Amino acid sequence: MSVHAIEETAAGAGEGTRQRLLHAAAVILSQRGYSEARLGEIAAAADLKAPAIYYHFAGRDALITAALREGQILVRQHVLAALEKLPADATAEDRILIAVDAHLRVELELSDFANAVVRTAGHVPPQIRADIEGEITAYHDVWRELLAEAQAAGALHADLDLSIARMLVLGSLNWAAEWRTPATSVDEVVEAAAMIVRGALFPV
Amino acid sequence: MSVHAIEETAAGAGEGTRQRLLHAAAVILSQRGYSEARLGEIAAAADLKAPAIYYHFAGRDALITAALREGQILVRQHVLAALEKLPADATAEDRILIAVDAHLRVELELSDFANAVVRTAGHVPPQIRADIEGEITAYHDVWRELLAEAQAAGALHADLDLSIARMLVLGSLNWAAEWRTPATSVDEVVEAAAMIVRGALFPV
Repeated sequence: MSVHAIEETAAGAGEGTRQRLLHAAAVILSQRGYSEARLGEIAAAADLKAPAIYYHFAGRDALITAALREGQILVRQHVLAALEKLPADATAEDRILIAVDAHLRVELELSDFANAVVRTAGHVPPQIRADIEGEITAYHDVWRELLAEAQAAGALHADLDLSIARMLVLGSLNWAAEWRTPATSVDEVVEAAAMIVRGALFPV
Repeated sequence: MSVHAIEETAAGAGEGTRQRLLHAAAVILSQRGYSEARLGEIAAAADLKAPAIYYHFAGRDALITAALREGQILVRQHVLAALEKLPADATAEDRILIAVDAHLRVELELSDFANAVVRTAGHVPPQIRADIEGEITAYHDVWRELLAEAQAAGALHADLDLSIARMLVLGSLNWAAEWRTPATSVDEVVEAAAMIVRGALFPV
């Protein structure tokens, strides 16, 4: 299991077995995708026997749903924390570029949960998707607000459809989880993405 | 099964049952993803009984590999055909924007094969991925050349990493297959993507 630097839980430390199971589910989801993520492998990654899972979760889908929800919460918290560190006079462009940076870092190197939700949220059954939709919407709301601020400040292309722009930008960032290998550093991805998103959204 | 306007085969018409099976596989892959695409459902979509598949393909993975390979070939052919229609004095920017248009249209509305390969190529087992890697590389070569032409013409940001830029742009286009619903027209996606990619790659 990979080791990540940030605290891999939205609920705080000390949950023990339950949190170990969630983290193992996130790792196996990232590696195998929803359909191939087997309970036995998740249990083994958490140093447990598979039946122990049922003490903590109603079943496979409940465990996976909880792991994906936690991933989406972590992405939002990480991006919001980065935004809060900016000075009060940061421009709309500063704010969007720091959000790009934070999204890529939590997805690519800081959190197995974040990586799992980015890679698999589009490939889960409708019921799981419905159960995490609220968290996905909450994260997109952060971006809706960032783009609306930029538009209000007159910084964006005037005739750009903000909904589609948001999906195209987040798609570009999310897809990095599909293609990046250790041959390309996260810093390199962040640098190119910042350049591209700046040009994409902010006319000179 | 959806009906598409362009000829859904790289090999030409007249293949009958085999081509019907490939098209059914592409449709079911687009809807269900690799792991949930069942042979019985593919056969039913092609108006066949499942055992008939083995007359044309060694098995499920051989059928899926052939459908994905055909999808990747169609994407490349469609983009190359659009590029060939441009006048000889088209700029690097014209060429990249017509490639964006062609990629999105073949992925989102013209071809179930193209949609299938865009959505599932990152979620198939290593052997299938290896079997279609040559076609994926051939398509990326089209984009490598487009970006290299633009750089040679001095049109691109000078310090942009072209490999990463290519993946970020294609990721943005590919992700549209994940999120677009009928509420957003393909024309709207194409228009916003053209604006975004122009700004992303071509400094004013």
